[in-house]
Amino acid sequence: MKKIAIYPGSFDPVTNGHLDLIERGLKIFDKIIVTILCNPGKTSLFTVDERKEMLQESLKDFPGVEVDSSHGLLVDYVVRRNAHAILRGMRAVSDFEYEFQMALMNRKLNRDVQTVFLMTGLRWIFTSSSIIKEAARFGGDIDDMVPAGVSMRIKKKFGLVNK
Amino acid sequence: MKKIAIYPGSFDPVTNGHLDLIERGLKIFDKIIVTILCNPGKTSLFTVDERKEMLQESLKDFPGVEVDSSHGLLVDYVVRRNAHAILRGMRAVSDFEYEFQMALMNRKLNRDVQTVFLMTGLRWIFTSSSIIKEAARFGGDIDDMVPAGVSMRIKKKFGLVNK
Amino acid sequence: MKKIAIYPGSFDPVTNGHLDLIERGLKIFDKIIVTILCNPGKTSLFTVDERKEMLQESLKDFPGVEVDSSHGLLVDYVVRRNAHAILRGMRAVSDFEYEFQMALMNRKLNRDVQTVFLMTGLRWIFTSSSIIKEAARFGGDIDDMVPAGVSMRIKKKFGLVNK
Amino acid sequence: MKKIAIYPGSFDPVTNGHLDLIERGLKIFDKIIVTILCNPGKTSLFTVDERKEMLQESLKDFPGVEVDSSHGLLVDYVVRRNAHAILRGMRAVSDFEYEFQMALMNRKLNRDVQTVFLMTGLRWIFTSSSIIKEAARFGGDIDDMVPAGVSMRIKKKFGLVNK
Amino acid sequence: MKKIAIYPGSFDPVTNGHLDLIERGLKIFDKIIVTILCNPGKTSLFTVDERKEMLQESLKDFPGVEVDSSHGLLVDYVVRRNAHAILRGMRAVSDFEYEFQMALMNRKLNRDVQTVFLMTGLRWIFTSSSIIKEAARFGGDIDDMVPAGVSMRIKKKFGLVNK
Amino acid sequence: MKKIAIYPGSFDPVTNGHLDLIERGLKIFDKIIVTILCNPGKTSLFTVDERKEMLQESLKDFPGVEVDSSHGLLVDYVVRRNAHAILRGMRAVSDFEYEFQMALMNRKLNRDVQTVFLMTGLRWIFTSSSIIKEAARFGGDIDDMVPAGVSMRIKKKFGLVNK
Repeated sequence: MKKIAIYPGSFDPVTNGHLDLIERGLKIFDKIIVTILCNPGKTSLFTVDERKEMLQESLKDFPGVEVDSSHGLLVDYVVRRNAHAILRGMRAVSDFEYEFQMALMNRKLNRDVQTVFLMTGLRWIFTSSSIIKEAARFGGDIDDMVPAGVSMRIKKKFGLVNK
Repeated sequence: MKKIAIYPGSFDPVTNGHLDLIERGLKIFDKIIVTILCNPGKTSLFTVDERKEMLQESLKDFPGVEVDSSHGLLVDYVVRRNAHAILRGMRAVSDFEYEFQMALMNRKLNRDVQTVFLMTGLRWIFTSSSIIKEAARFGGDIDDMVPAGVSMRIKKKFGLVNK
Repeated sequence: MKKIAIYPGSFDPVTNGHLDLIERGLKIFDKIIVTILCNPGKTSLFTVDERKEMLQESLKDFPGVEVDSSHGLLVDYVVRRNAHAILRGMRAVSDFEYEFQMALMNRKLNRDVQTVFLMTGLRWIFTSSSIIKEAARFGGDIDDMVPAGVSMRIKKKFGLVNK
Repeated sequence: MKKIAIYPGSFDPVTNGHLDLIERGLKIFDKIIVTILCNPGKTSLFTVDERKEMLQESLKDFPGVEVDSSHGLLVDYVVRRNAHAILRGMRAVSDFEYEFQMALMNRKLNRDVQTVFLMTGLRWIFTSSSIIKEAARFGGDIDDMVPAGVSMRIKKKFGLVNK
Repeated sequence: MKKIAIYPGSFDPVTNGHLDLIERGLKIFDKIIVTILCNPGKTSLFTVDERKEMLQESLKDFPGVEVDSSHGLLVDYVVRRNAHAILRGMRAVSDFEYEFQMALMNRKLNRDVQTVFLMTGLRWIFTSSSIIKEAARFGGDIDDMVPAGVSMRIKKKFGLVNK
Repeated sequence: MKKIAIYPGSFDPVTNGHLDLIERGLKIFDKIIVTILCNPGKTSLFTVDERKEMLQESLKDFPGVEVDSSHGLLVDYVVRRNAHAILRGMRAVSDFEYEFQMALMNRKLNRDVQTVFLMTGLRWIFTSSSIIKEAARFGGDIDDMVPAGVSMRIKKKFGLVNK
């Protein structure tokens, strides 16, 4: 049986840290579905379509990866996609707390879904999407933290290059 | 002298974890006043009156419990109600930090008020009001995390059942 | 019914932080039994008898406090002494983790025993018995961290004053 | 290709928490090799042979599980066994720190070995081998925290039943 | 060469904890530039000009301190001011995580800028600007947590005294 | 006035992480005295003399660095050496807790001594002396974690090369 994992997140936008984690995940799972969780209550820099495009572009050379988005309950989505695991990266203690609570809630909602954690690579420990966006907004050089296409799109959003 | 504790919170809405903590608290204190802290700056799903109603309904069989709400400084309220302790539940390290800071500030504001911590029951570690609301919004089954009347009201709020 | 709490620990030796916590606890409980846990596997600076003597000396003006020692399972001792609560101080995140695990284990062993946490006073946050002993060993001034009689006994142990 | 994970530990002795984790791990991996790490510098209650025997007994109904022991560098062992992942359970923040450091070191020593973390089931959060042994030593009832055969052996070690 | 440090923050408003940290910092650095970071996305109680005024008033007796504000990337500002260090206070574990991530990002953006951490004095551990404002809003006495002029201004903002 | 900092530790043995921290510290302080704290109660792999030799060898090209050892109370040593700061590296949350407590105790013992924290470089986050020794003992390659001379000495200690 093929082992499929869902890698959910905001991906606003995808970073090199996300790509590193997907690469690691592919050594454990046969297929990874990278899923943008649509949360209407959360403001984002990029639309879901823009985020999907950046993910697809960045992941086009990764066999066994699919990009998708989801609106409802994560565990229901996992079942619908015939997956049996949620893949998550962990970087810091504060991540751990939140991830622990989410993993417990998801298990409560569906006992057959496992949450699997991989450590983010050391180089990417500090490259969360939000901290990268903050640095970029003020002109910080983010070129080795995100794929080239993503860097360009962030600069456009902040009016740092011509559209 | 009767030992009275204030159990303050948002209770938006009350969960089984809160009820569990009140039950434990009643083994330590003669009376517990469950107090909704009205914070105009914070958006809530339920109004203060709705929250009070749900608390009263859920706690009607607990002797020695009163439900109230408060607008001003917590330590002043504690004194006004002839209580001498603030009861708080603790679940996680992130709770701990915030609770520590609040307890220190409250002691600074009034040295006679003690903050007493009880551990939330293991079953309720993951049932914060906010995580329950998030699960319910997307159709997750929350029936064994909150009292029946609360579950019904949450579903109504999210338009998941007819009003 | 009288509310009795057990305050267990090594008390090797008692510090001002312990006394501060007992004073706070007496505002919550009618009686506190300060209990030295005898752990043969742990090396200590003072014998159980010496520790008991220092506790009794330091607590002689606290009405409602008894000093005792215990060899077996803590929850069994709690029941034997007609107490229904274990009193613990909390200072830091690392305390929290260990205390959480112990409280869960004790509840598992006996569901009727509550663990109650109070915050150690800010002044005593850094005065653990072990850090005080380490400072004293090298001649650091610990006079305002432990009762006078305890300070004298520590200095004697380390050969810093004549016996 | 068969996905093989190494689940290393002291297993002194195996607990229900370990079994729960192995069961979860089998949903991710095709085979799990449970490996006792022999650390001459660490005192243990049971010999490596006794620990192996308890693991084999407890795991005899789990298809796809092998019990082994190892003396050298963990990443070398992983390679020797044709595995590509180290499986670890996580329970608390303090675990997280240590696990993080070990995972980083192991990746440094061999970049092809992934460390995969699964959350320990909520029921087993407090059942570390060491806390169970401490409870058992003083006569605490540990029967629903370890397999029956393990409980019997612990009691024998502590002289609580006839050999 | 003169050692110059930038002490960046919101200072909304300055507290005794900030002053304590600046005093400590002056024992390490020859000059400290206290810099209000202007973040348009964050709502503040006081305008940048009001905050600057309060800082200048509170720091007028500290030789070697300058008050400034900055709009862009912090590391660029550090270089522009001929400084080579960022000074930060640390109070709690949650601070630590965030500070760690920021320090790593800043080092990534400019390797020549060091982040230097000093411990906030024990007395000021609980006096964050936000917790002080919350206490003041409800009439709590904050007079020994902020300089006199700041206390007056906060009360005016909340309409607790005549303007 | 020359700014002198004491960098205390076990240095059993010195690692690249220590050297990285000293290099950063030299951008803040005019002189750093690297001081081996002699703790008779702690077993070490190398003698104080061996550790001093390795430090001197590794630091011979760092101007403004002196290597020393100390037996008594750290704050007394700081004063004796005309220093006014203790330099410490921080890597993780568990470090933070302990460092915080030590810094508070040292300030209590002598208010004029500041503890200054610098972040360990990302590359060295996992290279504590103890984890390196554990890896080396089992044949792990530690050549890029410690200076060449130190690596050789560790291998000799563990009998992995001829003396």
